[in-house]
Amino acid sequence: MPVRIVVLGGSFGGLTSAYELRRHLGKKAEITVVSDLDKFVFVPSLPWLSMGWRRPKDITLQLDKILKPKGIKFIHDEATGVDADASKVITKTREIEYNYLVIATGPALVFSAVPGLGPEDGYTECIFTLDQAIKCNESWEAFLENPGPVVVGSVQGVSCFGPPYEFAFEVDAELRKRKIRNKVPIILVTSEPYVGHFGIGGLGKAKRIMEDEFAEREIKVITNMSVEEFTPGEVRLKDGSKLPYSLSMFAPPMAGVKAVFHLGNPKGFIPVDDNYRHKEHRNIFSVGVAVAMAPPEKTQVPAGLPKTGYMTVRMAKDAASTIAAEILGKSQPRTQPVDVLCLMDMGKTAAFMKARPLLPPRQEAELKAGVKYKWMKAGFEKYCLWKMRHGLTQLP
Amino acid sequence: MPVRIVVLGGSFGGLTSAYELRRHLGKKAEITVVSDLDKFVFVPSLPWLSMGWRRPKDITLQLDKILKPKGIKFIHDEATGVDADASKVITKTREIEYNYLVIATGPALVFSAVPGLGPEDGYTECIFTLDQAIKCNESWEAFLENPGPVVVGSVQGVSCFGPPYEFAFEVDAELRKRKIRNKVPIILVTSEPYVGHFGIGGLGKAKRIMEDEFAEREIKVITNMSVEEFTPGEVRLKDGSKLPYSLSMFAPPMAGVKAVFHLGNPKGFIPVDDNYRHKEHRNIFSVGVAVAMAPPEKTQVPAGLPKTGYMTVRMAKDAASTIAAEILGKSQPRTQPVDVLCLMDMGKTAAFMKARPLLPPRQEAELKAGVKYKWMKAGFEKYCLWKMRHGLTQLP
Amino acid sequence: MPVRIVVLGGSFGGLTSAYELRRHLGKKAEITVVSDLDKFVFVPSLPWLSMGWRRPKDITLQLDKILKPKGIKFIHDEATGVDADASKVITKTREIEYNYLVIATGPALVFSAVPGLGPEDGYTECIFTLDQAIKCNESWEAFLENPGPVVVGSVQGVSCFGPPYEFAFEVDAELRKRKIRNKVPIILVTSEPYVGHFGIGGLGKAKRIMEDEFAEREIKVITNMSVEEFTPGEVRLKDGSKLPYSLSMFAPPMAGVKAVFHLGNPKGFIPVDDNYRHKEHRNIFSVGVAVAMAPPEKTQVPAGLPKTGYMTVRMAKDAASTIAAEILGKSQPRTQPVDVLCLMDMGKTAAFMKARPLLPPRQEAELKAGVKYKWMKAGFEKYCLWKMRHGLTQLP
Repeated sequence: MPVRIVVLGGSFGGLTSAYELRRHLGKKAEITVVSDLDKFVFVPSLPWLSMGWRRPKDITLQLDKILKPKGIKFIHDEATGVDADASKVITKTREIEYNYLVIATGPALVFSAVPGLGPEDGYTECIFTLDQAIKCNESWEAFLENPGPVVVGSVQGVSCFGPPYEFAFEVDAELRKRKIRNKVPIILVTSEPYVGHFGIGGLGKAKRIMEDEFAEREIKVITNMSVEEFTPGEVRLKDGSKLPYSLSMFAPPMAGVKAVFHLGNPKGFIPVDDNYRHKEHRNIFSVGVAVAMAPPEKTQVPAGLPKTGYMTVRMAKDAASTIAAEILGKSQPRTQPVDVLCLMDMGKTAAFMKARPLLPPRQEAELKAGVKYKWMKAGFEKYCLWKMRHGLTQLP
Repeated sequence: MPVRIVVLGGSFGGLTSAYELRRHLGKKAEITVVSDLDKFVFVPSLPWLSMGWRRPKDITLQLDKILKPKGIKFIHDEATGVDADASKVITKTREIEYNYLVIATGPALVFSAVPGLGPEDGYTECIFTLDQAIKCNESWEAFLENPGPVVVGSVQGVSCFGPPYEFAFEVDAELRKRKIRNKVPIILVTSEPYVGHFGIGGLGKAKRIMEDEFAEREIKVITNMSVEEFTPGEVRLKDGSKLPYSLSMFAPPMAGVKAVFHLGNPKGFIPVDDNYRHKEHRNIFSVGVAVAMAPPEKTQVPAGLPKTGYMTVRMAKDAASTIAAEILGKSQPRTQPVDVLCLMDMGKTAAFMKARPLLPPRQEAELKAGVKYKWMKAGFEKYCLWKMRHGLTQLP
Repeated sequence: MPVRIVVLGGSFGGLTSAYELRRHLGKKAEITVVSDLDKFVFVPSLPWLSMGWRRPKDITLQLDKILKPKGIKFIHDEATGVDADASKVITKTREIEYNYLVIATGPALVFSAVPGLGPEDGYTECIFTLDQAIKCNESWEAFLENPGPVVVGSVQGVSCFGPPYEFAFEVDAELRKRKIRNKVPIILVTSEPYVGHFGIGGLGKAKRIMEDEFAEREIKVITNMSVEEFTPGEVRLKDGSKLPYSLSMFAPPMAGVKAVFHLGNPKGFIPVDDNYRHKEHRNIFSVGVAVAMAPPEKTQVPAGLPKTGYMTVRMAKDAASTIAAEILGKSQPRTQPVDVLCLMDMGKTAAFMKARPLLPPRQEAELKAGVKYKWMKAGFEKYCLWKMRHGLTQLP
């Protein structure tokens, strides 16, 4: 009887884990992907979708269609819990037994962190899920009819600082293209101690470069700042200042999702060893944003550690090869500390970042900005979707 | 009978208004320019004159000679008042009735703002008028015989920050050429919150660029500063420090001139609508420095909004076409917010600035420095004098 | 009978003085060099030696071998005192009478300035003498077996800031080459008010450039700082923070050497006039680090004025030509204020610095970084050693 492996999540971590396990184990494993979403969404392109530069169909793949040819089972259902002792996943409709579980759920978004935060119970847009980005795009289109101040940012406790940067740069670029930039003051508010910190303790000359990039575009930056409250039309900061807005987009803090929260640290993130194996439950692995990772330094305003798609794929490959080695009776592979390559959109240009390893001290650290990276980012999106469609998992 | 239009002032605003009115109205108007100065002075070149790089005749035009061929009357007389109800200008020798009045007087210089300020009752040079620049050049020549510290700057309340920058850069360049820079510490003191603010809330990367330009030349910069007092040989700052000097040049604050002060705001600047029409007196217009314009932001040390020659010409064209439209029975033209293109001298190089509109948020904002802009600036001076001599008013 | 001239010291100042005196005076002078070291050491290459990039024999010359062909006597002995009234140098083994004395001893290193400082009674490496650099290289080789944090810097009162910069940059470069940079956080601690101050009041854009160079390499910089104490494995700073280290290298303050201390200012540095003649004893001259020179400005944390090899050579030439002129009955030559050209190693690149004169205000001030200066520095080492071997003293 084949080993039963259940993968929770159908994004970078889930798909890469499933594909890699299939590649390593062939028919020795029965692999099941469980996700409440029936699509793979190329999340890095959600800021572009919010700008109207992409349609949903440009950046999504139907999970059943891409998994079936690989002989991977797909269950479109929401996991509500995991019984680690009984090795069972509980969903809304069934219980699924596993020999191995890979938790690749991504995060829960904690909009309750700041009153008025978020697109559902609050007043701010978000671009972390497909639905949010579609809603943000609707707000953006309405905004263009009657433009006014834009306030973008990351509240205290955020760990993923890139998308607000991208959104600010893209808003700037689109408004200049439409010749109405002069109607829109743009402010970026961030809990980072300085721009270019990115939650990873900075990156070479990133501080100086990002300060210049924001200055060049006359995007005002407020760093090291907490938000007290969002009201309809106003961002109220810790220092008492009030920023009026016609459109606001703020990243929320993240936590572990409800179904696996009890397996995690106080924030619900899963504690794992260097092979992404749960520190207590040896047949549970976790990859991507679901994993508990400590920030590199204590900052004045709390800031977490980001986990990019590239990092998630790196983790998924290591987790899969560890599971496969165990099933095949081989010795556990030695992993490398996770590093990051990243392309951040900047409107008409983009930035390339390299951090090896992710946190200082590093062997390699680099941030460069330019038009060529914009082209590279556009190309990489297509390449990555093509790989996911065809079950390929190699990194560039 | 032709409509009588009186223009107060024979500089950028006055000449452009007169030429434009003639062009629009032909013989339908009798146009009279009144000025206490018999010359047009290319004010942007006064810093060069103070350095001995230009002679007065290089940068001046006789007003009667250039106005006569255009059929514009010139009265060389000082206006002492305006009776807005009776539509009369009062000068030292006569009263002049008008149907329309254009106030293009430029500013009064408020040397009383700081004890010891100014070349007449004080100890500091100024380069805002031809006579001041000639005197400054004499002081400069004497200084070169016995060089010592140079302190240059803008006191609290100044609105025109460019000329002190230019003077500092030019002093540096000339001293290096003469191989005596090592005898002259140069300090720039400014009420701006940072260099590159320019009274317009900054301009793209101007702060970083100007800091570098000053650092490269080892010109020390003191920002966000008020001056308490000038004594012969010492600048006393608000923070208690005392800067000795052998030569000092400081820009004074500006106000409206006496003759039209009563038509203006508390500082004597004329309140106008978007077409530069006086908000109360519908047959009075004002252009250039005489116009009341609010600064973009409250700064710690008070700083006003600069008005360049380019801006003045833009305003004069809009005012003239509004007057002409009214006389010709056409609808009032729709104006654009004033913007600015500017070339600032930096000694061996120069800076090009673009701010569209003038104040943030802007559609375009740029500051670039380089040798080519120095050549452009030298060429633009000749081009502009040629245009003024021949009554041409188009902008580049 | 020839004039007897004694030169204390066999480094840049001593050799240049001896060679120049021989060139000016031929057989009219009996020239004796006294040094406790039997070698000329090319001190600027000691950081390279500490990295293992040079061997001692690559950067040293035997003094007797290079002085003999020039007819210069060499006494390998330690001077213990100078009787200025009797015009006698006292060494451990003899007394040497002189008509003129040139003090070119270089400095004493004041390791007692901070508890735990220094390679002998303390815990930190130093690279100011050949023996120290050899010991530092041994520590470096041991460190590479078991790498950890590196803390490098200049304590309060230091005047020679360049070598710690070089050491930090070289450690970074070597670790990256060995692919273990990620195991080594590097911190530079300095008493300078900012990086690029160098004890000479800054140098053009040096602050901005050096901040960028350190940021690019992710070397953390702590400026304007005093050290309270070094313990084995920890640097304790004035602000209470404690920096753990596996390897530390700190520059100590300098003073005059014991043998001539009584001829100097309270720190033992020799007070001289513009011709490097002792202000009281007219037949004593001093050049190089032994000379008393005031820093350009008072800094929050005390910092002295550096004296480079180039400066020392400049001084030695002026001192020698003054002595020669006096002996030959010519008028005393007029000297120029000392200036500096300098190449600072930065690992894979280097920086070129020019300060003319040394202290502001300057006629010329420049700092440029690039690979070509690294090549220039490597070439200059060979050129300089070749010159010293052959008794040539011209500057580039």
